[in-house]
Amino acid sequence: MINEQYKKMLEEKSIIRELSEFAVARGKEIGYENVFDYSLGNPSVPVPAKLTQVIIDLLQTRDSVELHGYSPSLGIDFFKDKVAGSLNQRFGMDYTGSHIFPTAGAAGAVAHAVRCVTKPGDKVLVLAPFFPEYRFYVNLTGAELSVVPANTVDFQIHFEKLEEMLTREVAAVLINTPNNPSGAVYSKETLKELAGLLYRKQKEYGRDIFLISDEPYREIVFGDVDAPYVSGFYDNTLSCYSFSKSLSLPGERIGYVAVNPRCRGGELIVPICGQISRGIGHNCPASLMQLAVGEMLEERADIQVYETNRDLLYKELTALGFSCVKPGGTFYIFPKALEKDSVAFCKKALAYDLVLVPSDSFGLPGYFRMAYCIDTEKVHRSLVPLRRFVEENYR
Amino acid sequence: MINEQYKKMLEEKSIIRELSEFAVARGKEIGYENVFDYSLGNPSVPVPAKLTQVIIDLLQTRDSVELHGYSPSLGIDFFKDKVAGSLNQRFGMDYTGSHIFPTAGAAGAVAHAVRCVTKPGDKVLVLAPFFPEYRFYVNLTGAELSVVPANTVDFQIHFEKLEEMLTREVAAVLINTPNNPSGAVYSKETLKELAGLLYRKQKEYGRDIFLISDEPYREIVFGDVDAPYVSGFYDNTLSCYSFSKSLSLPGERIGYVAVNPRCRGGELIVPICGQISRGIGHNCPASLMQLAVGEMLEERADIQVYETNRDLLYKELTALGFSCVKPGGTFYIFPKALEKDSVAFCKKALAYDLVLVPSDSFGLPGYFRMAYCIDTEKVHRSLVPLRRFVEENYR
Repeated sequence: MINEQYKKMLEEKSIIRELSEFAVARGKEIGYENVFDYSLGNPSVPVPAKLTQVIIDLLQTRDSVELHGYSPSLGIDFFKDKVAGSLNQRFGMDYTGSHIFPTAGAAGAVAHAVRCVTKPGDKVLVLAPFFPEYRFYVNLTGAELSVVPANTVDFQIHFEKLEEMLTREVAAVLINTPNNPSGAVYSKETLKELAGLLYRKQKEYGRDIFLISDEPYREIVFGDVDAPYVSGFYDNTLSCYSFSKSLSLPGERIGYVAVNPRCRGGELIVPICGQISRGIGHNCPASLMQLAVGEMLEERADIQVYETNRDLLYKELTALGFSCVKPGGTFYIFPKALEKDSVAFCKKALAYDLVLVPSDSFGLPGYFRMAYCIDTEKVHRSLVPLRRFVEENYR
Repeated sequence: MINEQYKKMLEEKSIIRELSEFAVARGKEIGYENVFDYSLGNPSVPVPAKLTQVIIDLLQTRDSVELHGYSPSLGIDFFKDKVAGSLNQRFGMDYTGSHIFPTAGAAGAVAHAVRCVTKPGDKVLVLAPFFPEYRFYVNLTGAELSVVPANTVDFQIHFEKLEEMLTREVAAVLINTPNNPSGAVYSKETLKELAGLLYRKQKEYGRDIFLISDEPYREIVFGDVDAPYVSGFYDNTLSCYSFSKSLSLPGERIGYVAVNPRCRGGELIVPICGQISRGIGHNCPASLMQLAVGEMLEERADIQVYETNRDLLYKELTALGFSCVKPGGTFYIFPKALEKDSVAFCKKALAYDLVLVPSDSFGLPGYFRMAYCIDTEKVHRSLVPLRRFVEENYR
């Protein structure tokens, strides 16, 4: 019989998908260029030209049996060593290739990390607002996700609530900085306080508490914002990364888990990731991509455009009276809706061809998310309907 | 704490891995060209030149945001439609793209298929001899794998035993034809009898029994051997395929599940695969590979060499007195060892730099597997030590 657990998942409607489907359907009526689709976090800038050339060079110069052959079960050494070297140089860490496990993007990394350090029944804390897919990555392992309420002042951490919820059953805390959906970047002070709390609780409970740090937006930070490297603050950290945003290749599904060399039992975590991958038949990202991305660790797609878009939207939204924390990074902004029910708010916006995402699934109702990974020209044009939407409904 | 279930998996030694490590270490001593490594099923022939050109063309002509962008969660339509069209034309099926779910090779396909049609506690039958990784694909879903004893006469199906074990708790039967490790190809008669038995048991128990058909060697059949398409015989069939062998690109991790259009509840299976992929963060094979392989459905790597190798080995082994079923396909041969303990047998062979795999983990002790996906020249050279090994130990 068809598995009932997954069948039930199909019945849950995804508001983001519904909105995106609206955007596509509406695009067919009026031209997609006239739909101001702020719903999806799909990078809008091309891959660096160097990447295309690196792939072509690999195809033209390497023996195809080697190039397209099986990746070793723990990943290709060239890729792992390059990642370790780059992290060491940028963040003063001391990884070796053996601390790096290649995954299908940050999604694969978080799902693997959670499986590694939990058993069914364990609790995993996430901090609102959070990326809704975390529910699936966590719950399908048999662990149980609990949501720590947001610090809505600046979207740093609500430490009082976190401490309250950090009980003996908590095996891991899952954070995301720079943050989807708020755009907030955790400061050095926040990370110090977090590490202090976790060390204290580890001692109190006499057990490990792992910090799973989801960092696909690590490179997308604006102006002089400092984005400290999470693993530098706390030993039991598994850093989850994706090249989807920094190199604009989300469809190629490549990222990694980096295990802090001082992590307790850390020498087992990469081999365990290998066993998890084996069980699902994944067996590492595409060999060609591991070899190509290994050459691209210091390269970035032209992510500057996201800062331009942030500036435009932040200025306009605050001028229109929205309460809004200025994003320090990512390509998201997360203002408070102009009415309590943000689903109703976002539905009204559709009449102006503005596709905004209500915040309920992010664990903090009453807000909305705009993903501004779209052409700057389109952001400009969207300001007119945005003004009309606010004036005609909320003035 | 580190997950104990996976930690335990690490402690189980893999004999195939140990042998392969021996081969690599020995290769460093005497040159790998002098180690007759028959341990690994890694394709040895280059990818078709056309594939390299197709990838380069895609890189040079497509918009990179589109080319490397997120795959839709159920896969790229172009790939799905091409697969459906090819299967329909070759095997008289009536798939549409909506019946195809792209996976990380056949491994990902089997793991997804098992998750789709079982719940924890269900039984899944496999037929000895079988690919040892099935244990992991099945057991990590929470279902329970049971092994139906082999038909050692011709490595078709032992129907008496299968019927005996086909109890009410069985949710699925997992078969593999052409077969790893035996090289046997199930005949039309075998598949008809299998389908008849499954239909009968479905009726008797009033529940669905799914047939999961693992077919990565579908194209590697020799001479005039007929390899009938399994799904054509039984409606509740999920066909699991990989391009690893037919196009020689195992590291790129691309394959699919094809759901028979008449499968009960079949319209849910592909969407459920999407949910499974979502939960593990996989989200489809690399976009570039889906688009490239979609252009390659009627192409093959030069798999002819495997038949040449089969002929050489079969002739020599039978001349040396081995009892051996002639493989109809794959790149494996599975003779009976010359002593009862095939582990001891294979250990003795190492002294002749012959790396053979004992059959215990395939669910049928007393045999050994040779993977002859190596250069024909090397097969020729290996016959001398093979003769010496037999003469010096078993005459």
